[in-house]
Amino acid sequence: MIFGDSKAPCAELVVIGDEVVSGLILDRNSQYLGEKIHELGIEVSRITTVGDSASVIEDCVKLALKRSDWVVMTGGLGATHDDITKSVLLKVFECGLKKDSKVASMLEEMFRFRGCAVPGMVRSQFEVPEKAEILYNEKGTAPGFKMRQGKTILFSLPGVPREMQYLFEKYVAPEMAAQKNKTFLHRLIKTTGISEADLWAKVGPLESLQEKAAIASLPSHLGVRIRISTLAESRPEGESRLDEVEGFLAQRLSRYIYGKDEEGLEEKVGALLKGKSLTLATAESCTGGLIGHRLTQVSGSSDYYKEGFVVYSNEAKVARLGVDPKLIEEFGAVSEPVAQAMAEGVCRVTGADIGVSVTGISGPSGGSDLKPVGLTFIAVHDRSGTCCKKFIFTHDRIRNKERSAQAALDLVRLMIQGEVEI
Amino acid sequence: MIFGDSKAPCAELVVIGDEVVSGLILDRNSQYLGEKIHELGIEVSRITTVGDSASVIEDCVKLALKRSDWVVMTGGLGATHDDITKSVLLKVFECGLKKDSKVASMLEEMFRFRGCAVPGMVRSQFEVPEKAEILYNEKGTAPGFKMRQGKTILFSLPGVPREMQYLFEKYVAPEMAAQKNKTFLHRLIKTTGISEADLWAKVGPLESLQEKAAIASLPSHLGVRIRISTLAESRPEGESRLDEVEGFLAQRLSRYIYGKDEEGLEEKVGALLKGKSLTLATAESCTGGLIGHRLTQVSGSSDYYKEGFVVYSNEAKVARLGVDPKLIEEFGAVSEPVAQAMAEGVCRVTGADIGVSVTGISGPSGGSDLKPVGLTFIAVHDRSGTCCKKFIFTHDRIRNKERSAQAALDLVRLMIQGEVEI
Repeated sequence: MIFGDSKAPCAELVVIGDEVVSGLILDRNSQYLGEKIHELGIEVSRITTVGDSASVIEDCVKLALKRSDWVVMTGGLGATHDDITKSVLLKVFECGLKKDSKVASMLEEMFRFRGCAVPGMVRSQFEVPEKAEILYNEKGTAPGFKMRQGKTILFSLPGVPREMQYLFEKYVAPEMAAQKNKTFLHRLIKTTGISEADLWAKVGPLESLQEKAAIASLPSHLGVRIRISTLAESRPEGESRLDEVEGFLAQRLSRYIYGKDEEGLEEKVGALLKGKSLTLATAESCTGGLIGHRLTQVSGSSDYYKEGFVVYSNEAKVARLGVDPKLIEEFGAVSEPVAQAMAEGVCRVTGADIGVSVTGISGPSGGSDLKPVGLTFIAVHDRSGTCCKKFIFTHDRIRNKERSAQAALDLVRLMIQGEVEI
Repeated sequence: MIFGDSKAPCAELVVIGDEVVSGLILDRNSQYLGEKIHELGIEVSRITTVGDSASVIEDCVKLALKRSDWVVMTGGLGATHDDITKSVLLKVFECGLKKDSKVASMLEEMFRFRGCAVPGMVRSQFEVPEKAEILYNEKGTAPGFKMRQGKTILFSLPGVPREMQYLFEKYVAPEMAAQKNKTFLHRLIKTTGISEADLWAKVGPLESLQEKAAIASLPSHLGVRIRISTLAESRPEGESRLDEVEGFLAQRLSRYIYGKDEEGLEEKVGALLKGKSLTLATAESCTGGLIGHRLTQVSGSSDYYKEGFVVYSNEAKVARLGVDPKLIEEFGAVSEPVAQAMAEGVCRVTGADIGVSVTGISGPSGGSDLKPVGLTFIAVHDRSGTCCKKFIFTHDRIRNKERSAQAALDLVRLMIQGEVEI
């Protein structure tokens, strides 16, 4: 039990679809709903995922209605033969269909806009369970339903993530929020450049912090995210607990923390560049364009991202960035001197304030005893000088590329923040 | 019911973990198991996901044992206080613990290798349910268990994906395979450049095909994948059914199909380039390096991917690729003449056989009435000439970039295959 209180209201999810139980698609709806409902201070006690079988769905819904305060169903509301949620609801709630004129007019309008009449199959959506309140769906053709049995409220939502999320935000979340009595708050503290074990060793004993908030560690090959969360009587009380925990972590981990919540490393780097009116250019070998791709995921990046080169071959390193061929000959393309020359060259050629370069062996082939797969040099150059770091990544090609790009963006961040030694 | 046979053996999954029900992590184990078990010809009838609550887990396991031929549990086998699966199994199967000397010696060996004694908490893993067969786990510290009740077999596996998959492949899959009497086969046909509705209109009536195999359509913003699957008495029988359906689809959809099963568009383009000993260079504006990144995901891409430019600014388009500034002035940077000049320029500058360029407005800002957000020009140049296509993508920035890169790679594919008009 997450909230440690068996009388707290609880919710159950019922996910419907052959494509989910047979592993054809990855169900992300459950994670979305689990997180959102949890944030509302309601515990999700159970998620049941079933195929398109009427009797199994009926069985699940009946059990869920008995056990839980809230039941949220997703899927099976489309207009094809395997969408059977509506007929199951008729059976469970013992009612018939009625025509909903607002659904009808919304769909007629939608198809008029597309220049055609409502197709025969879609017209079945006009008919809704008599006992249901309708969740009007501006994002698709299937309306959702809200139905009540005793003190339990059931929501049936479409399975298309965009439509499901829209109806959840519009109808379900406000209703759940109105009934909750505590406030759930959480923050995500994002770190990179330190292993999970080293991170927690640096933080030290957690006992006193854990009285303030729950602390969870989410490691990945790109860094460790720390989630701190608390269930408080009021928002100010919760915020102050989280502030205290966050302050403690920030003090211990300072340079490793790059962002909070939704902020990615590329956003952070972008904000730092923008704040200091600096421009950046990239010179990528093994990352193949991934750093440029990440930088340009951020709207407005054209303000500070000047230009990029994907210089896979030695010739390109020489021709585009003016790397001295003798350096490549003497030290090899994957070496500190070449990484430095690439970062310096990309600044010289483009006139950017900061240049970042990556040269490495992503694998699986191309390694040697002296230069193993995963060996990567990353350099950042600005007016103050050039900083170069050596890494040996031990993953597969794709994750080595991802780690290289992450480490390169992080080195740019630290350079701008004045936290690297030249 | 996916296999349409209520007497076919069925399996149930029980997934355990507070971090899953509260949406803190995305459960990928269920998809893995759902797909693998489905491929063995066993229908997964239900997936139940619950938090770390002993009574709820007990209830789920008891129900699953009654309903199903196979029960596969994941999670809750670690050695911390919230790992309670083992104690639930003792209760459900009414047995005590015994020490397993092989588990003990494996763990002692593992920690000797790490240079320390087995930590106190981990020593609890030496104790296993008396009635269980042990699934020895070389990839981690938690052993799995196999237990039997009546005709039902239950497997309890750790939640760490790598360990779960290892024990599934080692113990569970062979046992399920031995009991199956049919062979499940499937193929994924990958298309791009055609909408789902247009695709099925081109294919026409499916009835006769559906007697041979199940046909599922999986649309995304990058294209429509078609999964064809069949449950056959023998592998040759199944293969021949799938061949027939695939042949029919290939005939109707020819140019839109770029790959099969695991093959991505970047692999297909790479194979075509390699097969004809051609080299490719990229000139990216709005995609920011994504095309280069995708090309270099493929091992060996340095053989054919010569070089790339991320030319975000007008100056870079002129300085790097020799685009005539007058073209930009007259038609704007996002225009057919500029896209063509970029593709031609990148070939001229790098000496590559084929050049591909993208220039567009990814959004959310930068659009106008004349040139809306999503407007994108993609050009491919080779010795035979230059082909340019105009698109208006209607998604957000990130998906517009993804669609642009996909369309660009597809245009390269069609160019090499001689399927575009110059």
